[in-house]
Amino acid sequence: MSRRRPTLAEVARQAGVSVSTVSKVVNGHLDVSDETRRQVELLLEQHQYRPRRSPGRQPVGLIDLVFQDLDNSWAMQILGGVEQVAHEQGIGVVVSAVHDDRSRPGRRWLDNVRARSSDGVVLVLSELSPEQRSQLEALGVPVVVVDPVGDLAHDVPAVGTTNWAGGLAATQHLIDLGHTRIATISGPTRVLCSRARVDGYRSALDAAGLTVPDNYIGHGDFSIPGGYAETHRLMDLPEPPTAIFAGSDMMARGAYEALFERGLRVPHDVSVVGFDDLPEAAWAAPPLTTVRQPLSEMGQMAARTLLRMVAGGRPSSPRVELATELVKRASTAPPPD
Amino acid sequence: MSRRRPTLAEVARQAGVSVSTVSKVVNGHLDVSDETRRQVELLLEQHQYRPRRSPGRQPVGLIDLVFQDLDNSWAMQILGGVEQVAHEQGIGVVVSAVHDDRSRPGRRWLDNVRARSSDGVVLVLSELSPEQRSQLEALGVPVVVVDPVGDLAHDVPAVGTTNWAGGLAATQHLIDLGHTRIATISGPTRVLCSRARVDGYRSALDAAGLTVPDNYIGHGDFSIPGGYAETHRLMDLPEPPTAIFAGSDMMARGAYEALFERGLRVPHDVSVVGFDDLPEAAWAAPPLTTVRQPLSEMGQMAARTLLRMVAGGRPSSPRVELATELVKRASTAPPPD
Repeated sequence: MSRRRPTLAEVARQAGVSVSTVSKVVNGHLDVSDETRRQVELLLEQHQYRPRRSPGRQPVGLIDLVFQDLDNSWAMQILGGVEQVAHEQGIGVVVSAVHDDRSRPGRRWLDNVRARSSDGVVLVLSELSPEQRSQLEALGVPVVVVDPVGDLAHDVPAVGTTNWAGGLAATQHLIDLGHTRIATISGPTRVLCSRARVDGYRSALDAAGLTVPDNYIGHGDFSIPGGYAETHRLMDLPEPPTAIFAGSDMMARGAYEALFERGLRVPHDVSVVGFDDLPEAAWAAPPLTTVRQPLSEMGQMAARTLLRMVAGGRPSSPRVELATELVKRASTAPPPD
Repeated sequence: MSRRRPTLAEVARQAGVSVSTVSKVVNGHLDVSDETRRQVELLLEQHQYRPRRSPGRQPVGLIDLVFQDLDNSWAMQILGGVEQVAHEQGIGVVVSAVHDDRSRPGRRWLDNVRARSSDGVVLVLSELSPEQRSQLEALGVPVVVVDPVGDLAHDVPAVGTTNWAGGLAATQHLIDLGHTRIATISGPTRVLCSRARVDGYRSALDAAGLTVPDNYIGHGDFSIPGGYAETHRLMDLPEPPTAIFAGSDMMARGAYEALFERGLRVPHDVSVVGFDDLPEAAWAAPPLTTVRQPLSEMGQMAARTLLRMVAGGRPSSPRVELATELVKRASTAPPPD
């Protein structure tokens, strides 16, 4: 066996696959069949292949952390987790936001990432356009997605959270308190985490033998006004719910406002559960019972996975979900008599 | 006049000052007398001196943003401001936290900053040790301090906020509502912003011809428990206050808890004003009237100043203070009859 460093083209020829496929295996992308991956990896191993970076691609001790936007409380927690892991290894974390690139055709975040030629990218994004996906792939550096909203990134390793189990636990908690008229306000249906949370809600009701009318399932957009409007709609129903599981703390906050306006007390008249456990949740009055997303841990896991890939390793799993936790505060109680 | 690039040593000799002083002028440090600075700058200009970076010091399109820690809501707002300005210029922002370096003798944040040889540093720190200061100076890159707590960084350009005027405005608001028994809970006295806020409080009382007992001035540590304990102390006084100006939103939150425990209503029995305008403040019940620090704008200003210095310019002022703003919500009302 030649000790000469083989080109990817040679490996591709021997494996009978395209160079692009070999490149995907080398860069840890996951949209390659297991069989092909094993074959390519075997050849790479036989050739004692070690990933070589192009001249502009020396390891620089930097990773990029890209957020959709920076104006929310959970971005900080994810950053804290990523920074902690990177700091321990002396790696710098370049933080940026996507901004509204569509309306401003100037500099794009991907151009900036490319110009830095950092060693890898942790993305915190709810959605990636097909164009963005292909551009990311063209960067040729490892990418890990932190995915609190559960959008399945098919070919990129992702760290998520157990949205379904979180929805189940929130609803089960309300059932355990004696509620039977339990409504939910979900996020936008196009976002997968919304579906997962609602499915968890349904499963808890089913398991308890409870049925609720279809109009007990409302749709907000994760925002305070969304939760506010849906709560008014729910409380206007002929048989309004005695408990509301909101798919985000922000929507729970909107629910509080609508209930206060109607002279209803939380939790005496209506119980409310949120989702996220933002720092704000403990400040609400009453303090909000909610489903905690382990955002700092998710950031840590994403950074560890990325740095392993930068070092030539592979992610242990295409998708990891870290457990949510029900944080019981004071916004839930047994239903009124 | 020779066109040869002069060494700093030559300029120092001609100016009759130390090389260190010339270096300070070149790097924009401010602890140089105006006369010396002018003289050195004149010589640098005559020699057509352009700052030259050492081989490891090519402009890399990166700046460092260093926080004391990342676990507070205002760090995100400062980051948002810095990132916005840097993004427009295609500059990457490397975010890190100091962590507890004293207990962990391994890697230090300054080592990491040095290893990256980024173009400049925005520091968000309440205190710098003399050792840290001299290490920072040794980096030889421009430094700007974002200084929400008002610790005067003598020789480094700083962006702060008008703490004194904020304390004055908060207290004036309570006076305008008819309060005469107004207490304050300040942060630690060693932190200058605490003093500035208390001085603004005193000035507002003085201007209104009001006097309060010495024990109306309490000291917390910017934390919820600090505000909680001091509020209990204040309400135990023979003549308790009808209004409390807390030097941070966190302490105002502690004040709420102590007042609720005593069966006192905010604002009906006691008015409360905070300081910071954290995202949490609007979630409190009642929503907290507070003094807003323009954190995003402070981050923007710091980034602009730093990038000007990186480009060879000088900060327009050694210290800039951006205006605070009183945000009136629902935690203040006229005193009870």
